[in-house]
Amino acid sequence: MHDDLNAVLVRLEADRVGAVERLCDFLRIPSISADPGYTHEVARCAQWACDQLRSAGLNASVRKAKGHPMVVATHEGPPGYDGPRLLYYGHYDVQPPDPIELWKSGPFEPVIVDGPRGKRIVARGAVDDKGQVMSFIEAFRAWIKVHGTLPCAVTVLLEGEEECGSVSLEPFLLENRHELKADACIVSDTGMWDVETPAITTALRGLVYVEVTVHGPERDLHSGQYGGAVPNPINVLCSIIAQLHDGDRRVMLDGFYERVEEVSPRVRQQWRELGLSESEFMESIGLTESFGEKGFSALERTWSRPTCDVNGIFGGYTGTGAKTVIASHATAKISFRLVASQDPAKVLESIQAFVTARLPAGCRMEMTEFGANPAFLVADGSVFLGAAERALAAVYQRAPVLIGSGGSIPAVGAISRILSTPALLVGFGLDDDCVHSPNEKMEMACFEGAQRSHAAILHEIGRMRV
Amino acid sequence: MHDDLNAVLVRLEADRVGAVERLCDFLRIPSISADPGYTHEVARCAQWACDQLRSAGLNASVRKAKGHPMVVATHEGPPGYDGPRLLYYGHYDVQPPDPIELWKSGPFEPVIVDGPRGKRIVARGAVDDKGQVMSFIEAFRAWIKVHGTLPCAVTVLLEGEEECGSVSLEPFLLENRHELKADACIVSDTGMWDVETPAITTALRGLVYVEVTVHGPERDLHSGQYGGAVPNPINVLCSIIAQLHDGDRRVMLDGFYERVEEVSPRVRQQWRELGLSESEFMESIGLTESFGEKGFSALERTWSRPTCDVNGIFGGYTGTGAKTVIASHATAKISFRLVASQDPAKVLESIQAFVTARLPAGCRMEMTEFGANPAFLVADGSVFLGAAERALAAVYQRAPVLIGSGGSIPAVGAISRILSTPALLVGFGLDDDCVHSPNEKMEMACFEGAQRSHAAILHEIGRMRV
Repeated sequence: MHDDLNAVLVRLEADRVGAVERLCDFLRIPSISADPGYTHEVARCAQWACDQLRSAGLNASVRKAKGHPMVVATHEGPPGYDGPRLLYYGHYDVQPPDPIELWKSGPFEPVIVDGPRGKRIVARGAVDDKGQVMSFIEAFRAWIKVHGTLPCAVTVLLEGEEECGSVSLEPFLLENRHELKADACIVSDTGMWDVETPAITTALRGLVYVEVTVHGPERDLHSGQYGGAVPNPINVLCSIIAQLHDGDRRVMLDGFYERVEEVSPRVRQQWRELGLSESEFMESIGLTESFGEKGFSALERTWSRPTCDVNGIFGGYTGTGAKTVIASHATAKISFRLVASQDPAKVLESIQAFVTARLPAGCRMEMTEFGANPAFLVADGSVFLGAAERALAAVYQRAPVLIGSGGSIPAVGAISRILSTPALLVGFGLDDDCVHSPNEKMEMACFEGAQRSHAAILHEIGRMRV
Repeated sequence: MHDDLNAVLVRLEADRVGAVERLCDFLRIPSISADPGYTHEVARCAQWACDQLRSAGLNASVRKAKGHPMVVATHEGPPGYDGPRLLYYGHYDVQPPDPIELWKSGPFEPVIVDGPRGKRIVARGAVDDKGQVMSFIEAFRAWIKVHGTLPCAVTVLLEGEEECGSVSLEPFLLENRHELKADACIVSDTGMWDVETPAITTALRGLVYVEVTVHGPERDLHSGQYGGAVPNPINVLCSIIAQLHDGDRRVMLDGFYERVEEVSPRVRQQWRELGLSESEFMESIGLTESFGEKGFSALERTWSRPTCDVNGIFGGYTGTGAKTVIASHATAKISFRLVASQDPAKVLESIQAFVTARLPAGCRMEMTEFGANPAFLVADGSVFLGAAERALAAVYQRAPVLIGSGGSIPAVGAISRILSTPALLVGFGLDDDCVHSPNEKMEMACFEGAQRSHAAILHEIGRMRV
């Protein structure tokens, strides 16, 4: 290991207790962004994070936004540096702690407890995302403490609305796009493969979410009097939903697969080598046989294939017992997970056309859009991906795996699109961290590994200019 | 017209005002069977109806039942009578009056108002069923007043739970089946074709109503993390529902049409002659084109063809906005209207098999039954049907039409089955009577025509022994 980096790692080791204390201070601020009653705490938390970045040695400020404030910090790297600039993205807000009665300790009273993998830090926000944010701040602190500078130029953007829709992010990025532009963005809000195996998430699915209502008769009708002679909106809706898949579980929207990109052979090979047991995967949710699009594994189906799921449906009589009614309308919430390079706008058009074409005469449809985000895919072969892989391999003594994620992170799409800055998702959570649930935790091993990893990533980027 | 009957009709005409006053007394008793707060009023109403039957000249008593009491009355006909016995069925209970604010006068303060077809009586129960019950009681009263006897043997059964599920009816019929047995049953709880055209309902659809729940994953899942690799119970349920019909809108349950009886050519011809405009029918509910099973008219589809409708559906997230969830289960309330001679038990079995055969591996279904009643069809050519047709033709100067009804009347099935007594549905309601709705009414013309019709039916049955 290079001496410059090694000295930083030694410093991190020496300041272990201090880093945990600072994280606990961060966790004690109930920065619940969704609840207007906590607006003051969210603002206090932004100021706290800003102060930390300053104390680490960056030039930091709290910046007004449409909603909760942003924190922006910069460091220009060593004197005369003209290499790549990294943008670090994270968020300082947290989910509400409900259901509060299921917490074993106060959600905003962080405790260190023993677990099967050693110590862990338990509190709301431990891993999502305060522990991850503190990991890179501690890496900055150690670099500057030891060497008087960061090895490369860095911009930091912390938002306070990630848990309530990131509504201010896009306008803020647009307004400040010259200032925030960088060569690559490190997003630290995802997970590792397991506690010993680091991971970089290179594929993230997009999402189109719509609510479709089918309207039939102008009022509810008695199913005895009218049944058999009128189109029933619930039956119509079910029939349309059923037609969304063919027998091989492929989505039947017109042109849906036209621009779907396959993952690279190298990544596919890595996924195979992860050795996920499909039967264990199904058993973990109480099912038996593998299910989904023909010709793909469970990992491929969730990480790299587009899908369609109905997330909610309602119509007619939903109380106890029986009512012989034909409802005048029925509604379904339908979402499509997208992969690169599907166009969300095209998918929206296809849904509208698909439903409309299948309505009986006299029926009509109404569609409301609740989000349309493209997928995210890191180009395999990116020099920044290579640098991050080398950094993680050095810290963990094993190569990171390139994984996918079935979910969507709107911020990643916005940063890629508005700043034209490719994102790298380097996260240190684990599957059992109880994100958004009671007793959220971050393993101490993950918190410390994350600090070392960020120190190493900064080092690798700093070497790129040589 | 025969002198015996004519004298009775003259008597009914002379007592017009008295009959309306008695009906209004009946309507003033709020005999709301579904509301336990009105139990005392229901009992008072039973006693009132019993007193009326006694004052008309029948041997009447209030009889205990599991729930609200029954009223039973008998008359043995002229001395030495050995001809057919008629059973009259009706109910003295009423629907709750809600929504009370939409009534123009008190639901239990009957008023006589002018309408486009002359005077009408407005109150809860006016036509369903107190006005119809009083029609045959007044016919009895007039016959006995004029001739000292009824022309044939009669049993009367009035129940007080028709509006809340008729739960005591079957056990009461079973316990008293020898006493209540008759040669034909007149049920007066249906409608005419229009105010000038009497009708006998000879086809009534049956009903099988089930609630089906499809269970998939053992808990709700994140649709990003799992979507595409797990069976989604809402999608599964929709797919099963979609398969319940083929492209010709025939129901795809195994053996569903095996025992379906066609209506007789005479009845089909009568239906055609009714001249129902399909486009007006569809327009009346805000639709355009005719819809339903291929090869049948709207009347045939609702009166004589079996159907399947989803009456309610729910699953997943049904609140405002978007939630990216895959629900662990989804539920639909599905009903099947049956026609003669479909077997409800067989249909229940077919549903269970149909759903089970279409579940993905690992999913399971749960089914709750909310009713399984066979259809009712009067044998064309029945001598009692012929007698009723002659009676109505004599009163209205035009032949009654033989109509169907898409709905189900559980009492009719129970009487046919338990007493082996064929039922004749001779009713005097009109489509716009606001049954179960605010401002329920019965046209005075219908009330008076009903009294004359029952007088004539009694006369026709009395002649049958000759």
